[in-house]
Order: sequence, then C-alpha cells, then structure tokens
Amino acid sequence: MKNISGGICSPKGFKAGGIWCGIKTNSEKKDLALICSEKECNAAAVFTTNRVKAACVQVSRDHLANGKLRAIIANSGNANACTGEEGLAAARRMAELAAGELGIDPGEVAVASTGVIGVPLPIAVIEKNISNLANNIRDDEDGHAAALEAIMTTDGRKKEIAVEFEIGGFPVRIGGMAKGAGMIHPNMATMLCFLTTDAAIDSASLDTALRRAVKRSFNRVTIDGDTSTNDMVIIAANGEAAGPAITEGSGEYEIFAAALESCCVSLARAIARDGEGATKLVTVTVDGAPDEQTAETLAKSVASSSLVKTACFGADANWGRILCAMGYSGGDFDPEQTAVTFKSPAGEILVFSNGMPHPFSEAEAKKILNEEEIEILIKIGAESLGGKATVWGCDLTYDYVKINGDYRT
Amino acid sequence: MKNISGGICSPKGFKAGGIWCGIKTNSEKKDLALICSEKECNAAAVFTTNRVKAACVQVSRDHLANGKLRAIIANSGNANACTGEEGLAAARRMAELAAGELGIDPGEVAVASTGVIGVPLPIAVIEKNISNLANNIRDDEDGHAAALEAIMTTDGRKKEIAVEFEIGGFPVRIGGMAKGAGMIHPNMATMLCFLTTDAAIDSASLDTALRRAVKRSFNRVTIDGDTSTNDMVIIAANGEAAGPAITEGSGEYEIFAAALESCCVSLARAIARDGEGATKLVTVTVDGAPDEQTAETLAKSVASSSLVKTACFGADANWGRILCAMGYSGGDFDPEQTAVTFKSPAGEILVFSNGMPHPFSEAEAKKILNEEEIEILIKIGAESLGGKATVWGCDLTYDYVKINGDYRT
Repeated sequence: MKNISGGICSPKGFKAGGIWCGIKTNSEKKDLALICSEKECNAAAVFTTNRVKAACVQVSRDHLANGKLRAIIANSGNANACTGEEGLAAARRMAELAAGELGIDPGEVAVASTGVIGVPLPIAVIEKNISNLANNIRDDEDGHAAALEAIMTTDGRKKEIAVEFEIGGFPVRIGGMAKGAGMIHPNMATMLCFLTTDAAIDSASLDTALRRAVKRSFNRVTIDGDTSTNDMVIIAANGEAAGPAITEGSGEYEIFAAALESCCVSLARAIARDGEGATKLVTVTVDGAPDEQTAETLAKSVASSSLVKTACFGADANWGRILCAMGYSGGDFDPEQTAVTFKSPAGEILVFSNGMPHPFSEAEAKKILNEEEIEILIKIGAESLGGKATVWGCDLTYDYVKINGDYRT
Repeated sequence: MKNISGGICSPKGFKAGGIWCGIKTNSEKKDLALICSEKECNAAAVFTTNRVKAACVQVSRDHLANGKLRAIIANSGNANACTGEEGLAAARRMAELAAGELGIDPGEVAVASTGVIGVPLPIAVIEKNISNLANNIRDDEDGHAAALEAIMTTDGRKKEIAVEFEIGGFPVRIGGMAKGAGMIHPNMATMLCFLTTDAAIDSASLDTALRRAVKRSFNRVTIDGDTSTNDMVIIAANGEAAGPAITEGSGEYEIFAAALESCCVSLARAIARDGEGATKLVTVTVDGAPDEQTAETLAKSVASSSLVKTACFGADANWGRILCAMGYSGGDFDPEQTAVTFKSPAGEILVFSNGMPHPFSEAEAKKILNEEEIEILIKIGAESLGGKATVWGCDLTYDYVKINGDYRT
C-alpha cells in the first residue's frame, strides 16, 4: 500500500468542489461542498450516537438506508441542529438542490452540516449558489482541496488521505477527507469524514468494514469528551477499479478492510493532532489486557483525563494521574502488574512498574515530553494476553479555553 | 436549624489541631492534623471507588469496619498512594503514633493523606512531631481552624460548616471540614471531608444517613472528572448531646439525616466554587425527569462538559453545548419537551424551549452569566414527574491549565 495524492478524487470516477455561498460571514472562506460519483455507488455510513441529532443526520440516514449513494452535499458555518421542522425541511432541500443539478434522485444524496447549533440554516443562499457549485466540480486534486476547505470550521490543518493498494493484481484506491477539532469524543466543531473508493464491494461488506475501521480510529479519538449532534462518516464505493468483487470473509476483503482502517486511523490521528488549542498529539496504548475492550476503556480514560492532558501540556511526567485515570475507568487491571512508559522521538523512559514508581531522570522525561508527538505506553499484563488498543488525544492548553470561551461571539 | 461557628469542634467532646511537621517544604504551612473525641464514637465512612486506592484508604477501611472511631490523623503534601508495602506500613504507623499519644487502640484511628502520588511518605517527620501535635489539640474554633489548614493543598478557600438543630427538644450539633479543589468528580488534589456530631446515633443508621447525604452532595460535584485515589468522607458521632437515641426510620432520624445532607451540600458547593482555577460556581439542575437517577445523569453530563465549562468562563449563552452534552449522556429525554434557562443574581433568561431556540437578548444573557454564581436550569418534562437532581461544578479557565500543567515541579 502506498500513499498517493488527490484525496477523495484519487479513486476513479469521483468529482468534488467547494465554494463560498454566504453561510460563513467571511467571503474568503468556503462553506459549501459537493462530492459526486459518475456511477451509482454502494455506500455505508456511521452516524453520531448523540440523542440530539442534527437534521442532516436524520435525512442522510434515511437516504442511505438502501446502501446506495451518488452524491454528498455538505456545508460549514451552521450545524442545522436543534432547528426543528424548519431545519429538517432545509436539510431535505439541500439534497433536492444537489440532485436537481446532477440529474439524480434526492434519495441518492447524503447531507452534512457543521457549525453553530440552533441557528436556522440560510437555505436561500444555497439555492442561489448551487448551480455555481455544480459547475465547478472537478475530478482532480483541486476539486478535493476545494471541497475539503468548504467543510472546515475551527480546523487548523487539513486532514486528508489517499492510498493505492492491489487486490488480485489490480490497483484499488481509497481517498478521504475529514474535519473536526473540538467537541470530539468523537465529535462538534463536529467530526465529518467522507471516503471514496473505486473498489468493487457490496454495501453490506462495506458497512462491516467501515464499522470496524471507525471503532478502531475515530471512536478512539478524544479531544474534549463531547460527542456532537452532527458527526458522520460516509464511504462511497463505485466499483470502477478492475479486479474481482470484494465480499466479506474473503482474502480480498481483508486487504480492503485493512487499507480502509489504515486511512481512518491516519485521519483520526490528524484530528487529534489538530485538537482545539492542542500543541501535542498524545497517543495512549494499553497492552496486555484480557481483551481489546478493556484495553480501550483504560486507554480512553487516560487520554480523556483533563489532569493527564494538562500534564502533557506542561511536559510533566505525572504518571500518578495516569494510574488514577485508569483506576476510575471501570476497566479491570492490577496496579501491581502495571508498567508505564513515556516515549517520543527524543527517547523513552519507564516511570512506573510493579505497583511502584520507577526511578527516572526528570530532565530526561521533560525532554521526551517536550516533543510534539508523545506516546504513553501502558502494559498491564503479559503481551500474550493480546488485548491491545490505541487511543489518540491531545494536550489541554490555554488556547483550548480561549477558543471555546467565546466561540459564538 | 441554624449555622454556628466552631466547625468540627462545635459538637461537644471533640478536639482538633494542626501543625507543620515537614512534609510540605514551606514551614509556614501546616501539614499534619489530628481530630479526636474524648469518648468512643459510632462512625461511618465513604471511600473512593478508584481501583487504585491509597494506603490510608485501605487502613481506614479496616479500622472503621466495626463502626467505631476515636481519632483521625491526616496529612497533606503527600498522598501516600502507589507506594507499595512501604506505604501501607507508613499509614499503619500513622495510626499507631496517634493512638500512642492519645492512649487508645490503633484500630480506633482513621488515617487520611492528600498530595502528590507515588512519593514515599516521610514517616520520620511525623514520628518526630506527633507529641507536639497531640499537645496542641483544642476543643475550640482555633483547634478546628488549625486542623483544617493542615489538610489543605491547592485549596484557595476554607470549606467548613457547623449547624445546630433540635431533636426532641434538645440541641444537636454537626460540624464539618472539607478540602479539595481538583481531581474532583468527586476527587486528587483529593477530596477529604471530616464530620463530627454529638448526636446519639448508632453506626448503622449513621452509615445510611451518610451514604444518602454523600450521594446528593459530594457525588454531585464535578470539577475535572477525575476521581482520586484518596477520597474519603468520615463522620464520627459521640452521643454527647442530650435527648433520645436516633435510629433509622424514626422522625428524629429524618431530622438528623436532613441536617447532615444540608452540611454535606454546603461543603460540596464550597468545593465546586473553589475548583482549581475556577472563577464561577455553576449549578446545574435537571427537573421533570422520570426519576432522580436520570436527572443526575443528565445534569452531571452538562456540568462535566469542557465545552459548557469554557462557555461559562466566557459568559457565552451557548445552550447548544448543553443540549449536546445531555444528548450523549445516556440519560433519557426528549429534546422537543426540553427548556433551558440561565439564572443568576442578575436575572434569568429562557434560551431554549420545545426543541427550538427561544429568542433572547445576548446582552442580557452576558450580564447574567458574568456573575460569580450561575445556574443552568433544565426542565425535561412536567414537574409532577418528580425526578430532580442538582449538580455543582465550575468553569474551565486558563488558570486550571496553569495550575495543572506543572503541578509537581
């Protein structure tokens, strides 16, 4: 598998574009994106588990129920959440507008929104600009870049990926884009991720592969513990690549699923690294657990702890807070069998083992924790136990407070 | 019921004191406290649910298993957690030292510690100074004040209470002190609370009353979501007050239990108000839930949300984050039936009702949210449903990040 350029436009047969239509006040930013496929796609999606669901989540879930998709229309600057019947009508209208331009059925269009909650979506500016958007979709890297820009809100960095790998001797591609920097557990400034592939895979197999990939990537990102009303991950597969059809259970499926998981992990890491106000990517891995779920529970608790996050910001090797966060997680482990190591490009250092502090140099620990990407490695038993999970988070900083202290005004 | 002075020394027959013995480096601060009763007390306690338990928690639980207590020895500046067998021996030694001075059995002494995790407790300085401490206990307000000072760490304010009420025509008193400002959910900089009363109440009844009071007070405080390794609440009842014996189920019991709950709520609010770096006490009340547990789940999720907390800091009436936090809490509610109101001494303002934003003046909302004590009132159904809970938290500020970014160094 190799990384390539082109993002969601790298698989054959996909076009994308993005414009400013007037939802954001700043006309130098884009706020409306369109992604479409020449052919009908098999599709799968994962939506927020928040009980409060934005209008776009309700509409997209309906439209994707049959596992088919041709296009995605997405706006930033307005979440269209907590906006009642009017909001639902606006989300449906977005699908109709895109379908009208593309000459397809509205039921073939998914809708996504991200931005402020509780403000009516200005559908009129979308109506006015939809033709302009549809006329500016392209099948190259620029198309991808414009669409990506149009779904970003407080994001500081672009999160994109494209890979090529072989199935049965034929090249297959997956492209992806994501946005999200806060209200992530996963979650609002909202997490959105759109993936395209030219793989020939049926909807049911695609759904299984996507759910496993999301569980091990986006669902293991934590920035502030808040899960948004608008989160969604969608993948569309148009089958344009040559080669055998991919079905769950086959060797081809495992290759595809592994590539998809790798793409999702790459985007998930990028989201964590771009956490609101974050200066550091913090990767927490728990190994030697009786099962993967226990490892995930423990790792998530550590990565979510405000005290661990501020310690990472301060480059303070405060392993006591790590043990403490594991202790209240509800996950089963024996402190007496636990070892904690900090690791980064500057080195690695064992700070706790067998229930006791392990002597270490504070200066060396500081050097390790001053890097931009740090790892917390926690071993709670023999590796042969096999339960392992990695969670991605970030530090908690002054800037997080600043960004979120007055987001709307 | 009236508030009185004297704290834990206000009930008859209790003495307390505090000194600096050398655990903290700053000799102008106190770090060792002793509380004792002339008579044997019936006692009850609640300990941290963290799987990683400090040595003092293990020792105190053993010593309190029979529901009897004569004294509490507590230190600040060192949590004596994750310190292995040596730590356990040190905690036992603390009980022995106090018992030796007071001429009682070590099993009649509870032990508490708060401070940094993973550093061996310097038991020698306690041995050296225990006589000095025992010689300086008093039964007045100064004794209470010295003991309180000696259990504080990052606390910015003193948390104390004393009340007098009547049972069967006779005056009964409850006194209390608490410490804790971070790692609270409840939780490290650790939450400790010691309560004394001269009520004549058996251990079992006292245990029931304490558990209910803690559930509705300390367990509804959230500062940073972290539960410490050292949290404990202890109450000792010496029966010195005149009047009838108090037993669970009686009218007298209800009077006592209500007074105890009121004391715990007062201390819990004080802890939330003194949250590390906090500028505001944020009280979240959910009403109209099908049951109290649902109300608590929803209110806790709102009070714990980093996004809600930063919005409170910024005086931003961002109700979308409130709905969002309710939505991912797991608690059952219908957004269409929900109303959200902000309230403070500066007024009150409805911002959301019937699933839709309710028009409001941003300027007025700002004025209300600029107060030091703000309330978020959430109604999710008819009041007649009766499920109601209040949770206390605080805002998330630059200073929280500052205090915790480099706690140890």
